[in-house]
Amino acid sequence: MPITVKALKKRISAARGQIPADLVLKGGQVVNVFSGKIQKGDVAIYDGVIVGVGPVYHGKEEKDLAGKWIIPGLIDGHFHIESSMLLPRELAAALLIHGTTTLVADPHEIANVMGLPGIHLMLKESLGIPFDIFFMAPSCVPATHLETAGATLSVSDLSTLKEEPRILGLAEMMNYPGVLMGDEEVLEKIVFFSDQMIDGHCPSLSDHDLQAYITAGIRSDHEATSLQEALEKLENGMMLMIREGTSAKDLKDLLPLINDKNSRRCCFVSDDLHAEDIQQRGHLDFMVREAIRLGLDPVTAVQLVTRNPAEYFNQRDRGAIAPGYRADMVILDNLNRFEVTSVYKDGRLVVDHGVLDDASVAWQKAASIESKPLNIAPLSPESLRIPVSGNKARVIDLVPGQLITHERYEDVKSKNGSVVSDIESDILKLCVVERHHASGCIGLGLVSGFGLNMGAMASSVAHDSHNVIAVGVSDAEILTAVEAVWLMGGGLAVVCDEEVLAETPLPVAGLMSTEPLETLVKQLRSVKKGAAKLGCVLEDPFMVLSFLALPVIPELKLTDKGLVNVNKFEIVPLFL
Amino acid sequence: MPITVKALKKRISAARGQIPADLVLKGGQVVNVFSGKIQKGDVAIYDGVIVGVGPVYHGKEEKDLAGKWIIPGLIDGHFHIESSMLLPRELAAALLIHGTTTLVADPHEIANVMGLPGIHLMLKESLGIPFDIFFMAPSCVPATHLETAGATLSVSDLSTLKEEPRILGLAEMMNYPGVLMGDEEVLEKIVFFSDQMIDGHCPSLSDHDLQAYITAGIRSDHEATSLQEALEKLENGMMLMIREGTSAKDLKDLLPLINDKNSRRCCFVSDDLHAEDIQQRGHLDFMVREAIRLGLDPVTAVQLVTRNPAEYFNQRDRGAIAPGYRADMVILDNLNRFEVTSVYKDGRLVVDHGVLDDASVAWQKAASIESKPLNIAPLSPESLRIPVSGNKARVIDLVPGQLITHERYEDVKSKNGSVVSDIESDILKLCVVERHHASGCIGLGLVSGFGLNMGAMASSVAHDSHNVIAVGVSDAEILTAVEAVWLMGGGLAVVCDEEVLAETPLPVAGLMSTEPLETLVKQLRSVKKGAAKLGCVLEDPFMVLSFLALPVIPELKLTDKGLVNVNKFEIVPLFL
Repeated sequence: MPITVKALKKRISAARGQIPADLVLKGGQVVNVFSGKIQKGDVAIYDGVIVGVGPVYHGKEEKDLAGKWIIPGLIDGHFHIESSMLLPRELAAALLIHGTTTLVADPHEIANVMGLPGIHLMLKESLGIPFDIFFMAPSCVPATHLETAGATLSVSDLSTLKEEPRILGLAEMMNYPGVLMGDEEVLEKIVFFSDQMIDGHCPSLSDHDLQAYITAGIRSDHEATSLQEALEKLENGMMLMIREGTSAKDLKDLLPLINDKNSRRCCFVSDDLHAEDIQQRGHLDFMVREAIRLGLDPVTAVQLVTRNPAEYFNQRDRGAIAPGYRADMVILDNLNRFEVTSVYKDGRLVVDHGVLDDASVAWQKAASIESKPLNIAPLSPESLRIPVSGNKARVIDLVPGQLITHERYEDVKSKNGSVVSDIESDILKLCVVERHHASGCIGLGLVSGFGLNMGAMASSVAHDSHNVIAVGVSDAEILTAVEAVWLMGGGLAVVCDEEVLAETPLPVAGLMSTEPLETLVKQLRSVKKGAAKLGCVLEDPFMVLSFLALPVIPELKLTDKGLVNVNKFEIVPLFL
Repeated sequence: MPITVKALKKRISAARGQIPADLVLKGGQVVNVFSGKIQKGDVAIYDGVIVGVGPVYHGKEEKDLAGKWIIPGLIDGHFHIESSMLLPRELAAALLIHGTTTLVADPHEIANVMGLPGIHLMLKESLGIPFDIFFMAPSCVPATHLETAGATLSVSDLSTLKEEPRILGLAEMMNYPGVLMGDEEVLEKIVFFSDQMIDGHCPSLSDHDLQAYITAGIRSDHEATSLQEALEKLENGMMLMIREGTSAKDLKDLLPLINDKNSRRCCFVSDDLHAEDIQQRGHLDFMVREAIRLGLDPVTAVQLVTRNPAEYFNQRDRGAIAPGYRADMVILDNLNRFEVTSVYKDGRLVVDHGVLDDASVAWQKAASIESKPLNIAPLSPESLRIPVSGNKARVIDLVPGQLITHERYEDVKSKNGSVVSDIESDILKLCVVERHHASGCIGLGLVSGFGLNMGAMASSVAHDSHNVIAVGVSDAEILTAVEAVWLMGGGLAVVCDEEVLAETPLPVAGLMSTEPLETLVKQLRSVKKGAAKLGCVLEDPFMVLSFLALPVIPELKLTDKGLVNVNKFEIVPLFL
């Protein structure tokens, strides 16, 4: 909403010192993202906006910041909120203490489950908090035709979002083959958003294909993992979003690329960041700390998480400590150690010495969240039966520490003509149960690498369509685990015999908790422990599980439509 | 206009090399404004757009550029077209050969004469040419209340411009006292354009007043003349537009400010640039040459006239040689010497080895230009009579080489009770004749410094209201000169006795010629020579004359309302 003449007049008066500022931070060292220098002086705030920096100001409230550092609030330009399993407001609370005041989110996950209402849910749940969340319109819902998603977002669906001022453009265009092949629907979306920002996602794309993808109007990428890939993308005009998330960690590899000539074309992002990581290591503050430790100039590092993303997204009211900018500010005791002490959002102290000041902040709690229940067709032991129909079967072979899998061929264990889990060989039954339309679609397969010797585990978080995925040693326990997820309205469950050992409810679209960070992290730890009790050898078994249904990461995956050989990009039978 | 899906599909195919490019520039050295490096390779163009850079491409037409340099078309972010006295299309022709392909213009001068129709004239006259002119909406029409302008632009007038896609925001807010005082009308304009760009103009403003001005939302300045002033403005978030025009030359003084950390916040602009200067020294190419000569890194210099202004104005389709960008390109034989060889606009060769290719370019000649005739009330010798009414009179004392004047007090020469020009003391009669509304308003004064010993000269270019200003040794000759200007429908005239010695017609709003650069420059030289024949000692007498009516530059000026003491900002009598 534009400012009124009356309000502007008062801001100008405050800037001139004719009326006192609301707040003056006195004598701090301000990181100037424009000059690249550090200037000592006062910062005057009036009406939520910075009205003066440098010379002496007086305010109704004055705070001595001698010896402290003041930097702009941090901005993450690419974040999937659902990856944190926190509602936007709870995520905001969790990130504020790390100095983040603005996110640009791609609500791709919830859109795959709920479509437009899911995006509106995110828009609504991110209002009324001292934290700004912008959104990009999800470009690829459903992600592929090899799975059943909860919704489809057509161009006309997306067009309804464009009027929303917090929608900044089209989210990462993951369907880069579609762009290159000239898929009409894909190009229609791009053309429709061509006057806004269009984010990219093109792992390993290079040479003419990369140039073609960029020619389409796509202006960023966060998938580069090598220096060479990153440099090629930057040179071709992409904003290089250097990612350090929970699974993908590119900071260390890409940092050597940054120099004084090209740093304006780089920023730091998270992409996917789990609740435990937020609690343990932090957010962009962690990236900046790491970057400084690895040798990056601190002021450049600050630019990467403030000015640069603000400029890329043309958000001219933030990303600097300067007159006319929002008073989104982070106070540090030491610039090099980069530990966030206090945070101001729109001039209000929201984090005071590391503690979120709930009381001072009008956290608008939602009365009720209009989510969508899990819609699963009735299941019976018969639903999970795999008749033996050959000698060798395809087995999904986990690769430790990676999201890719290998396709392996094994003799299977059977009983009464049906395939059963083989604990000795660690070949377990895996199933994906369609949960959006009660279609009864169930994909069945085998996976090696979990190491369970009893029980089962199930999750309603399974990229990208988020059907319910489960693995276990017996059909009965798998069914119990899926039922436990259903009873929670979505979530993670660990089952042994008929008992639910541990669970994490994710009632919002089966993706997000309604709890704050601390509670959620405790629950997540309990399901991890539960899985370990079953003998699971994986450090983060639910994350591994959630990526086994994603048919765009090689080599063998399982969706509700069956086994997918990702290299061929087609459904393949279990038996050879 | 957004691209169609079909056209985008073809561009992507061309980028992939599946269909030949329209044109491939082979083997040149491309200045990469993103990486700050120079890369050797091909540049492929299709449908007016760059579709590939670097790897090998093939095209219907191929051009060997081995050993040459390729940089983006140059962008001037602040230019008053009227200062060149050329129509937009003729200015474009003149600037293209210097590598400029985009201007952001403030049509402030014509708006003072014609109001909104003047701005529409400029919009219309800059269509259909291979050169892009964007406009800022003039913020200060009329400039002051101490003169009679041809028009007033209210907020509601300006609001009609906002729908025009080539209007990028609000032009330089010259009324900085109005901003600081909280003038309602001024702030209304700022609020109205707060979602677009707002340019500034605040010579010597500093400290709290500068911060207040910037707090209002003003994001650039081109008036800094010292390093200290420039640095303060840059630090406070202003885009530093370093100016090298015909009268104001700040390049050399401000260049030492630029370093790798802050260069992104700087660009080069012209502000006012006369036709003769364009012909003799060039445009931004001249500034870049000078900057390199003075030690600036050439790639940084290129960024200052390409990427940086494009980014400031959020024009995401230009300012780089990269996929998806307009094929606006300049070819140089040598980057350091920076002499423009050839120029491409939207992929078309428009300047070939220094020669503008008129034939290949659809120069849409205007059938007729709807200008406004000079509207002057009938004049008689009595109109110019100054009765003697005291001993000492105020005399405008020219300061050589500067726009400021001093106020001097002198005994005047008189005849029959009326003041007359005093050739011996070089105190000549000066008059400003209102020419917009035939009001009959005439300001009369005395000026010292022209050195005329015969004749008179008159001009319809007189900042900012552009009434007719004339100086001469006799009332009769002054009248003849004013009449000569009127007969041309505006222009510059030099008169001796009853004869017109030389003239330059400026029939468009009394400000612009309809001739091309070469013809105009010849005419301008002839009026200069004519003035010299009268004994004029000034190098550029018409420029000096044009600023004598501008009541915002100290110290004593003359408008149609009378003598203005600029320091007091009020009308003062001729006699003490």
